[in-house]
Amino acid sequence: MVSSPGFRLPDVADIADAAERLSGVAVRTPLLTAPALDAATGARILVKPEVLQRTGSFKFRGAYNRISRLNAAERAGGVVAFSSGNHGQAVAAVARLLDLPATIVMPADAPAMKIEATRGHGASVVLYDRDREDREEIARNIVRDKRATLVPPFDDPLVIAGQGTVGREIAEDAAQLGATVDVLLAPCSGGGLIAGATLALKDRFPRLASYAVEPDGFDDTARSLRQGARIANPPARRTLCDALMAAQPGALTFALNRKLLAGGVSVSDDEALSAMAFAFRTLKLVLEPSGAVALAALLARKIDVAGKTVAVVCSGGNVDGDVFGRALNYKN
Amino acid sequence: MVSSPGFRLPDVADIADAAERLSGVAVRTPLLTAPALDAATGARILVKPEVLQRTGSFKFRGAYNRISRLNAAERAGGVVAFSSGNHGQAVAAVARLLDLPATIVMPADAPAMKIEATRGHGASVVLYDRDREDREEIARNIVRDKRATLVPPFDDPLVIAGQGTVGREIAEDAAQLGATVDVLLAPCSGGGLIAGATLALKDRFPRLASYAVEPDGFDDTARSLRQGARIANPPARRTLCDALMAAQPGALTFALNRKLLAGGVSVSDDEALSAMAFAFRTLKLVLEPSGAVALAALLARKIDVAGKTVAVVCSGGNVDGDVFGRALNYKN
Repeated sequence: MVSSPGFRLPDVADIADAAERLSGVAVRTPLLTAPALDAATGARILVKPEVLQRTGSFKFRGAYNRISRLNAAERAGGVVAFSSGNHGQAVAAVARLLDLPATIVMPADAPAMKIEATRGHGASVVLYDRDREDREEIARNIVRDKRATLVPPFDDPLVIAGQGTVGREIAEDAAQLGATVDVLLAPCSGGGLIAGATLALKDRFPRLASYAVEPDGFDDTARSLRQGARIANPPARRTLCDALMAAQPGALTFALNRKLLAGGVSVSDDEALSAMAFAFRTLKLVLEPSGAVALAALLARKIDVAGKTVAVVCSGGNVDGDVFGRALNYKN
Repeated sequence: MVSSPGFRLPDVADIADAAERLSGVAVRTPLLTAPALDAATGARILVKPEVLQRTGSFKFRGAYNRISRLNAAERAGGVVAFSSGNHGQAVAAVARLLDLPATIVMPADAPAMKIEATRGHGASVVLYDRDREDREEIARNIVRDKRATLVPPFDDPLVIAGQGTVGREIAEDAAQLGATVDVLLAPCSGGGLIAGATLALKDRFPRLASYAVEPDGFDDTARSLRQGARIANPPARRTLCDALMAAQPGALTFALNRKLLAGGVSVSDDEALSAMAFAFRTLKLVLEPSGAVALAALLARKIDVAGKTVAVVCSGGNVDGDVFGRALNYKN
């Protein structure tokens, strides 16, 4: 993998390697039991709260696994990433940990707290207009001008392997509880988290049925899985799930996901907000809309899980107070 | 202890016994590392998030340890408790688990969500006027009329031993992280949590300095510790920390705390709200004001912890949306 990181699918050995690298650096998030959620669903639910991860989302894992392998010359040029916020925050935080410069290209309409937090980690933030500018071109120019290394948000074997440690930890902790995980539900944008986590979890539980959960209108992975080929979303849609707006599945992630996943489902903004309210009232976790979609799919019964053991990834909690305030008004 | 539960101080064997009884029933809450909190304090902080416990607070532990030991005749009469909410919810939830009737005596001005949640667990709720009625008398009448058993909120060896499992778990998980806990900060009302948790944790880390954290105006434990004798709070004060309004330390809890604790500190409502905002933005945990006071004491630097390893108990997360909304406006 070291020679050509872009052209090889990661495997469970890469995830084991990422786990070793992340040990003592990333937070080893717990696997939570929540009897009230079991009662609400008629299933045994295990919650993986990646909101407790450094920078408030799972993205730290992939970013650290990628950036910590740069050589001295690459480190000197620094790193660049384009991101609505969670990947950008993670890259910025990792760069500060490793003492490299970072530039993050963010949409001007990203949540204010994500932009602030990214700057708070010491990164330069370049804002762009989501409808009129091409973030990849902006990033490419920075790569050229600064000799910086682009850290892709999902379509990279080391990033996928880093996110895969989420699934590896779920497998370890479920085994400790004596549980066999039947179903995995995880949020999906470009597909790195669900690909990596499923790879690790299916290695331990081969009969696992894993589902990508996307926002309505951004269900490119679900549609691509049905089609058997990558399909893009129609342009210019909007969703509250700002972290799940990838235009289409990644090449590597889709190559994995078409082999590994049982399918994909999507949820509305209302369903995501209602899941945030449930998490506030019952789980006592702060979730952002994107981080709540897998829980939303569970609570809205998008998949029949009666009697099963279900792992649900709550992937991020970086949400502005005003959006969180909207969720508080939802009844469950 | 079985013969006269009210007149004997619990010890670490009682806590080990409680841990066994709670195993597989209570949530074994994790011990969280939070690098952002380390950076904010210059210490190594380990967060014990009891908000993730059944019913949203640590109170489930003591209630289950007490109620699960009732004999058949006692079970038939059911249980009664007086509580502003967290102990009441816990007693109600345990009673439902064990299929006993429960009556909870609550102040009429308790947070609406706590009253609703208590009813939601199937308990009868009797409301009283905090300034004009005597909740203990109301509870005594129910005990007499229904032959019910009163479950005390703190001054009971089995309740203290149940809460002590919080400290036992902190000790186990800290040891796994290779950490020696130097300081414990935990919210304090009647003193059951801090007494039990300190007992367990000091058994593992004898040089531990443990501090009770109370709301301003309700610092009866801090003042009693300085005085060397139990002192009551002046009446008719108000605080947002509705779960920390005990009139004075318990007899048993104070007998333990005067031997075990290094002291007590208090925080203002503003400091509690600000800690809730920090938990929202950085830890991604939902805390109620009472549940946030130990974190507030840490963030407001009430105790010098530079360079130390500090365990902080975030004891409860049962908060109405409107109070939580107020916290969201606080900057850190």
